[in-house]
Amino acid sequence: MRANTLTKGARTRQQIVEAAASIFNQRGYEGSTFSELMLATGLEKGGIYRHFSGKEELAAEAFDYMWQTARDLRLTGLNGLTGVAWLKAYISNFVNNRSPVAGGCPILNTAIDADDGNPMLRMKVTKALKSWRCRLRTVIENGVESGEIRPGVDAKAAATLIVAALEGALMMSRIERTYEPLRQVQRHLNNYIDRELAIQTVN
Amino acid sequence: MRANTLTKGARTRQQIVEAAASIFNQRGYEGSTFSELMLATGLEKGGIYRHFSGKEELAAEAFDYMWQTARDLRLTGLNGLTGVAWLKAYISNFVNNRSPVAGGCPILNTAIDADDGNPMLRMKVTKALKSWRCRLRTVIENGVESGEIRPGVDAKAAATLIVAALEGALMMSRIERTYEPLRQVQRHLNNYIDRELAIQTVN
Repeated sequence: MRANTLTKGARTRQQIVEAAASIFNQRGYEGSTFSELMLATGLEKGGIYRHFSGKEELAAEAFDYMWQTARDLRLTGLNGLTGVAWLKAYISNFVNNRSPVAGGCPILNTAIDADDGNPMLRMKVTKALKSWRCRLRTVIENGVESGEIRPGVDAKAAATLIVAALEGALMMSRIERTYEPLRQVQRHLNNYIDRELAIQTVN
Repeated sequence: MRANTLTKGARTRQQIVEAAASIFNQRGYEGSTFSELMLATGLEKGGIYRHFSGKEELAAEAFDYMWQTARDLRLTGLNGLTGVAWLKAYISNFVNNRSPVAGGCPILNTAIDADDGNPMLRMKVTKALKSWRCRLRTVIENGVESGEIRPGVDAKAAATLIVAALEGALMMSRIERTYEPLRQVQRHLNNYIDRELAIQTVN
């Protein structure tokens, strides 16, 4: 549904979700107080409760919104690409495109927040992580079928490596406030893709 | 100082640090309430304040304790090893040894918690991450000097890759509650070390 086709109530609801998302992404579920959520949304507690049953429902929608935003950003310009080219462009998007939602990758943040915490968020992030890895795995498997990627490649392990290395590098880059870890891991992954996934062609 | 040489006050202080560590590591700084810290330590608020100026001082000492515990665990049995053998044993320790402090890697948790949060913890985790990467880098550089590791290897980038991939895989393993991501990344890193870091020897 496009923004201008939303009713006033639905627009307000969406504005609350967007404002709350950056609070949850930066402060975590437990660390996000109602005062901060009120400040970010510009609403009183009652104004938020008019649209959401409570903090948990708001956090759930905020996670969906953040994850969709991050996912779309990482898929920018990938239409028409396949196999090795898709993987490298995806990695480049991850390294270079920053989400409008402050605080870094919502999967990484929510996973660390919820692994010992809120069960609803834990379920949501587990599902999102699975679908993320599954997308990469499918690109690799399709690449094998189309002859762009070597047969015998363990597509699930390759997808895990790409997700793990990017997420770990993002953690390092954010805490050290430099792109260096992300760029170093990008170089490694691109080499890995060329050497171990791509069908070697002789030009 | 060994535990039995500590004064009663110092022992109590250490017990508070150890009990608080697992709360901070699981719940984050903001998410750890004084009621939880009181429950974990078995003390009233006044009892904690007798030993610490407040939550921030307690969190600082809890981080130091957690990081020292994690570091020691990852270095278990590595005495006498160098170069490739050291790196592989280190990775194996990371994958297989779980800290007695619940909640996962204190660097990963504190980095995600503090990248947009508490400045004191941010400073501590930045320093710990730097010293961690520096240790791996030094092992690689010494390996180059002793002829175990190829000259020309970018030791800093290799250290970054190992840290990033392990931390990302730990996040995935903890949220999915399976060792699979850690084991997949361990296999990749061991292959990488054999192919790109080790001096190739013909037996």
